Amino acid sequence: MYKIAVDLQGADNAPELLADGVVRALADSSDLCVYLCGDKTRTEKIFKGKSVDKKRLVIVDAPETVVNGEDPVAAFETKKNSSLAVGMKLCKTEGVGAFVTCGSTGAIFVTAMMTLEKIGNPVLLAELRKADGSPFCIADCGANVDCRPDRLVHFARMGNAYMKTLGVESPRIALLSNGAEDGKGNTLTKKANALLKDSGLNFIGNCEGTDILTGTADVIACEGFSGNILLKTIEGSVKAVLGEGLAMFDKLSDDVRRDDIHRVFKRLYNQYDYTALGGAVLLGFKAPIIKGHGAATAETVYHIIKNAYALVRNDLIRKIEAEFSV
Amino acid sequence: MYKIAVDLQGADNAPELLADGVVRALADSSDLCVYLCGDKTRTEKIFKGKSVDKKRLVIVDAPETVVNGEDPVAAFETKKNSSLAVGMKLCKTEGVGAFVTCGSTGAIFVTAMMTLEKIGNPVLLAELRKADGSPFCIADCGANVDCRPDRLVHFARMGNAYMKTLGVESPRIALLSNGAEDGKGNTLTKKANALLKDSGLNFIGNCEGTDILTGTADVIACEGFSGNILLKTIEGSVKAVLGEGLAMFDKLSDDVRRDDIHRVFKRLYNQYDYTALGGAVLLGFKAPIIKGHGAATAETVYHIIKNAYALVRNDLIRKIEAEFSV
Repeated sequence: MYKIAVDLQGADNAPELLADGVVRALADSSDLCVYLCGDKTRTEKIFKGKSVDKKRLVIVDAPETVVNGEDPVAAFETKKNSSLAVGMKLCKTEGVGAFVTCGSTGAIFVTAMMTLEKIGNPVLLAELRKADGSPFCIADCGANVDCRPDRLVHFARMGNAYMKTLGVESPRIALLSNGAEDGKGNTLTKKANALLKDSGLNFIGNCEGTDILTGTADVIACEGFSGNILLKTIEGSVKAVLGEGLAMFDKLSDDVRRDDIHRVFKRLYNQYDYTALGGAVLLGFKAPIIKGHGAATAETVYHIIKNAYALVRNDLIRKIEAEFSV
Repeated sequence: MYKIAVDLQGADNAPELLADGVVRALADSSDLCVYLCGDKTRTEKIFKGKSVDKKRLVIVDAPETVVNGEDPVAAFETKKNSSLAVGMKLCKTEGVGAFVTCGSTGAIFVTAMMTLEKIGNPVLLAELRKADGSPFCIADCGANVDCRPDRLVHFARMGNAYMKTLGVESPRIALLSNGAEDGKGNTLTKKANALLKDSGLNFIGNCEGTDILTGTADVIACEGFSGNILLKTIEGSVKAVLGEGLAMFDKLSDDVRRDDIHRVFKRLYNQYDYTALGGAVLLGFKAPIIKGHGAATAETVYHIIKNAYALVRNDLIRKIEAEFSV
């Protein structure tokens, strides 16, 4: 049985609106057990009428919620029974393999630092899809700004372990830069480029913003500032161009098959919607933390639980440990 | 008469394939005079059969070409009659207001530094279109990496002057960061944020990658490393998603009107193809240098000459001087 702790509190949508994601994920995998951390009475009420295998849905009382905008450290100090704190404690004490939440990033980060055992340093990783549908990841995409060069090698290793859980045998690592040649970059990436060459990783050199969705890299290594810009620019650009395209098509005359067109746009939109896919994954702890965005829906929750399940099943933590024992 | 120097050498396509861009631009504006810098015999031959007002096409002999991959400093030292060197000299001595080239960035930069009088520091600016069709610019997008915070204010001022030439009265300046709140960013952008607040510019705060194409900023200020990632990621993401979309539509059955669909995709593609629009503009000198990409076509040349013409006509250099005399 693979155990995943799930926190439906702290998102924009109420737990009532998110619960069906849990139901669907449980129905998909008979060896998945969800530890649902939330106000017990409310949670029992939510799941009462739903068709789930009750043995695989453990409701764990966590009556407090850390809300968005709350000071993360103060929240950790005062709300010992928050769904965040309770969920992470389960990862430490109950052999729960991963934690899924749509709570606020700062609070997640602080609670993890205070609660979980570390492996390496924290890295926020995002899994996306390339134009050909194959997965790749960006590491780091926002947890670390102002890094030293060796941290980029660390991010590359985390990405390497992550991609291995997706079945990529020898992930190709690229370093995000402003030019493909080795000599291109800022002081940080020039040094990191040299370190990556000596890292033993399958380092394929620098990559540029133009190469990300159509290139060959499985892992884009970068410090969190530019990684965040990369991630959000992909998201923003895809949404902008699809939004416009759809508006243009809607103006075309009726004999264009609207349904087909909408289906194509929907599929394109979904392909690049990383938050709906696997969410962002916080690594660097003994259990991966999968974070859906604040505006998560039941669909998002379904996908991020599925991702958490796959990471546990494919032994991400052991792969990370192997990466760092080299 | 607005004088523009044009260099058709050093691009992937031969001058013969690019010349029609010059012809079209001359036909559009009766007060445009092009100083075409290239091998005289060859250039005369190229334009012989073409319908242009010969009084407004001055052929200036520049028999040498700086090729891509050549060491920029060595090229400057040895090729005194290159089209780059000759064109920039015209900007200094003949009252030519701008220089248009598809040559290599490094060589352009070195030649400009050695030839032209400076105003401020060099900035590479790219003009793009937002989803609503309105223009905005990214400054810097690659000329400066490893900047001090005050340089970002400098880039913002250059962008401010540039957007004024496009008729934007009080350009809204945003600082590229990994979060919209003032507290978000790395050490550099946090300091730059504070400086921008005191700059007298119309600073609207931080912006994220998600906001660029749909947001309200007219100028995205950033250091060249992240600006380059931003620019190229927009380009790469748009191309990837449109390429996929088109492939999907082409598979749909015949009663979908292929022509309409292709027209929509072409229009979307063009909207975000900044290299076809106005090219990248190197500022910081007494004449703006408009650089088309190496793979430029006659269409590109047409657009970048048009942009150069607009910048000269709308007095960009005087606007930059005003910006820095505050």
